[in-house]
Amino acid sequence: MSITTEIQTLTDFALDLAVASARVILPHFRKNIAIDNKLETGWDPVTEADRAAERVIRELIEKKFPDHSIIGEEYGTKTTGSAYSWVLDPIDGTRSFVIGMPTWATLIGLYRDGQPLLGVMNQPFVGEAFYGNPNGAWNRHNGQTTQIHVRPGVPLAKASIGTTAPHFYDDNPGFHKLRKTATALRFGGDAYFFAVLAAGQLDIAMDASLQIYDIAALIPIIRGAGGMVGTWTDNDPTQGGNVLCATTPELLDEARRMMRGEA
Amino acid sequence: MSITTEIQTLTDFALDLAVASARVILPHFRKNIAIDNKLETGWDPVTEADRAAERVIRELIEKKFPDHSIIGEEYGTKTTGSAYSWVLDPIDGTRSFVIGMPTWATLIGLYRDGQPLLGVMNQPFVGEAFYGNPNGAWNRHNGQTTQIHVRPGVPLAKASIGTTAPHFYDDNPGFHKLRKTATALRFGGDAYFFAVLAAGQLDIAMDASLQIYDIAALIPIIRGAGGMVGTWTDNDPTQGGNVLCATTPELLDEARRMMRGEA
Repeated sequence: MSITTEIQTLTDFALDLAVASARVILPHFRKNIAIDNKLETGWDPVTEADRAAERVIRELIEKKFPDHSIIGEEYGTKTTGSAYSWVLDPIDGTRSFVIGMPTWATLIGLYRDGQPLLGVMNQPFVGEAFYGNPNGAWNRHNGQTTQIHVRPGVPLAKASIGTTAPHFYDDNPGFHKLRKTATALRFGGDAYFFAVLAAGQLDIAMDASLQIYDIAALIPIIRGAGGMVGTWTDNDPTQGGNVLCATTPELLDEARRMMRGEA
Repeated sequence: MSITTEIQTLTDFALDLAVASARVILPHFRKNIAIDNKLETGWDPVTEADRAAERVIRELIEKKFPDHSIIGEEYGTKTTGSAYSWVLDPIDGTRSFVIGMPTWATLIGLYRDGQPLLGVMNQPFVGEAFYGNPNGAWNRHNGQTTQIHVRPGVPLAKASIGTTAPHFYDDNPGFHKLRKTATALRFGGDAYFFAVLAAGQLDIAMDASLQIYDIAALIPIIRGAGGMVGTWTDNDPTQGGNVLCATTPELLDEARRMMRGEA
């Protein structure tokens, strides 16, 4: 099997996983479901939809690729000697899910030798998926597939930015400067902000304190669309943390320096 | 024609208007469209999609009901002597629209004698509409129609709240208390927060400084689902302003008092 064929086969399999998880998740969406809180203080909801979806995805991976490693939000890490690791967030944006907003997504990433290889972000209620690999990035909506690209770079003053929650930045003066400098800042998008960046609709997507499964699937989508993935601190974005993505290296650098108080 | 039949006929017509507007809007969504800024300072984008959609809706109303009044975000007010006024926001959440987020909506409301009679919120990319009138409220997703109801009341400490942007409340200590008191507060939903409140998924939806066309269509949906529409200041919510909606009168009152610094 050529490398390109292998990547396509694995990408198709990841898309199949997304379809299988959607069948488990959608019957719970907008229903009056039980919500458990994962935190002692604060609110980190998890539902049976999260757990059932991850079980289905893990079962299908274990059947097809029993030797692959798996990292999942709900059921933890299974480490094998394989070069391949699946990184799963069955419902990213559970806070949106439990209030009926159609902005949650199923994130399915695959790492090879510790580096992101391909990823799928699926939103089955909207009927769309974004996916990417070293050959490119695509959006599929109601069965229609379009290749996607980031848009041309702009300076920070002309940029639109998306990030999930303002409270992550309460004590960060760099963020408040960034907010004042940019043309627009939008909250509440979860993984969608990273996807629409890849689709040429947004200039910067960023989020603080991400877990690996929050970002793993999105990196190949952004890179496949020609975008940049970095951080504004000194962590490796492929492991999560303070992730900052932008259309161009110049814009990433400008935003990064402002977040660090260097501009 | 009986009153119920008349309301049904008008509701069906409003749903037809939503379908017609979607045909004009969707070709612009996620494309690289021209964005004009309505503000001298700040960012209030408007696109050809907003304008074309309102033109189509107004033309259809003027053909079918030439004597009805029309209030629209983009093309202003046409006042006739009629008891009926259509109140239109062709794309509510243009800021979401221009960054490719599927949370904008077309809002079509009808007032009779100055009071909200029926309303439609349409999100054609997601493939769903919420609508309401004195006989109830409904959600239609991919052709399937379900009657919707608000969920049972909870005290504020157990409530989930949605509002569009935190910066409206920078100087409101009542809001910061509300945020600390409630279980969850989510940003960025635009009209969707009011719709999911009606659909039993959220306890409070609120937004500051609304125009009449931002809220007109949503009031019959919330009321038709059994929810409450009020304000936290002394304005009439049917005209816009600081609108606060909740599942029950008790919860509305508790949130209202906190926003006013009375609790």
